Amino acid sequence: MAGFAEKIRLFVAADLGENAEIPLAREQAHYLSTVMRRQPGDRLRVFNGRDGEWVAEIVAADKRGGTLCLLSHARPQAAPPDVWLAFAPLKKARTDFVAEKACEMGCRRLIPVLTRYTNAERVNTARLGAHAIEAAEQCGLLNVPEVAAPQSLDAFLADLGPRQVMFCDESGAGAPAAAALKQAPPGPWAVLIGPEGGFSPEEAARLRAHPGSHAVSLGPRILRADTAAVAALTVWQTLLGDWERGPQDQGAPG
Amino acid sequence: MAGFAEKIRLFVAADLGENAEIPLAREQAHYLSTVMRRQPGDRLRVFNGRDGEWVAEIVAADKRGGTLCLLSHARPQAAPPDVWLAFAPLKKARTDFVAEKACEMGCRRLIPVLTRYTNAERVNTARLGAHAIEAAEQCGLLNVPEVAAPQSLDAFLADLGPRQVMFCDESGAGAPAAAALKQAPPGPWAVLIGPEGGFSPEEAARLRAHPGSHAVSLGPRILRADTAAVAALTVWQTLLGDWERGPQDQGAPG
Repeated sequence: MAGFAEKIRLFVAADLGENAEIPLAREQAHYLSTVMRRQPGDRLRVFNGRDGEWVAEIVAADKRGGTLCLLSHARPQAAPPDVWLAFAPLKKARTDFVAEKACEMGCRRLIPVLTRYTNAERVNTARLGAHAIEAAEQCGLLNVPEVAAPQSLDAFLADLGPRQVMFCDESGAGAPAAAALKQAPPGPWAVLIGPEGGFSPEEAARLRAHPGSHAVSLGPRILRADTAAVAALTVWQTLLGDWERGPQDQGAPG
Repeated sequence: MAGFAEKIRLFVAADLGENAEIPLAREQAHYLSTVMRRQPGDRLRVFNGRDGEWVAEIVAADKRGGTLCLLSHARPQAAPPDVWLAFAPLKKARTDFVAEKACEMGCRRLIPVLTRYTNAERVNTARLGAHAIEAAEQCGLLNVPEVAAPQSLDAFLADLGPRQVMFCDESGAGAPAAAALKQAPPGPWAVLIGPEGGFSPEEAARLRAHPGSHAVSLGPRILRADTAAVAALTVWQTLLGDWERGPQDQGAPG
């Protein structure tokens, strides 16, 4: 039972260390006690994005709240490569998918960027964060991307500083992504995925004029935004990120 | 109005040619007349995966059925690279996503493969086909992957013939995907994505022993199956497929 229970992984906010007592959020306590029927003494794993992964034991948990006690350090914290994912928000379900893909693909930051043809008025960043956390919990990941507040394209470009940015140019003017990145500098990067309607001509011109910007194409077929995010990050991780490393280097989950 | 209406694209079964009359399926006629409020004389685009894309005019459409008349040939048929996507079926929503990703990523065939740890008993291939068609309609694609009946891993391997197969090996024994494919032969390929629990040790051994099989890893983080499908196909299309071509080569949709 204890071994089976360790398959549960929870993201917590608290600092993690030897013998620390960790308070459970109400919904986590409910999940453990009512949904998964775990009891005091059962084990699970916890992580917070800073202190690696720990084996924890349930001290108490019911539907109103609970406490864990940390038993042992299971995996050291890994630092993913420094890449951000910025995207024009979409319909709700696809935006949720982008958030989980950003997490699985090892992004440090997820940024909703409002463009001229963006087809969404409001962005629920708490919901995006919850989807990223769920992906991290289920995929054995140690990092959860920070979800930034929605910002304009101008504000996004101003925040980049010297960071390189790769944007997907549906006009066909961009170089194939792999060819473009082969000659590109390493260091901090961002991947920017435009809205369904593409960037406006003014936006595309502003992007091309931005220092450190790289217009790329992702093949001859038009991809939906969530697909384009995974494809662009795959090329980036392969050529400039950490995909030359095998799965064991992140530490397999329990 | 007519120009706007051309943004609608429908996949049809009939052969397409000059002045052909095309019967509408009941749900397509309902979609055009009731959902999109189109009327006789309005235009749209149709494709069937064989005869390219055509501009069509509505002759008649109400919620029970309708007819189109073809006006002009808009784009020639493109043949995507010869790659299949095989995957162990997942929960319903994720399986739907795999079907649409297979289409966007230019696969010719989508094959549900039942493995030892596959977490789904039934596969609705009609539903998979509908999701692939919807992706093709919305993304301006000319090809829809054929959806095969679910088959066992043994039957899948037997059907491959001389086709190369790349499978994602979560054990860490696989080479990074880009490195593995750089030295791999061109020609027909398949990408095989395992179930959430991975392949059983016997299945992994059988896969490794199969002639023309390539065990690959997709980075240090564990990916969900739909993410892994897009990532693996991105590497394949980049190194052995058609991603060196820009978006204009497939012909931009109207």
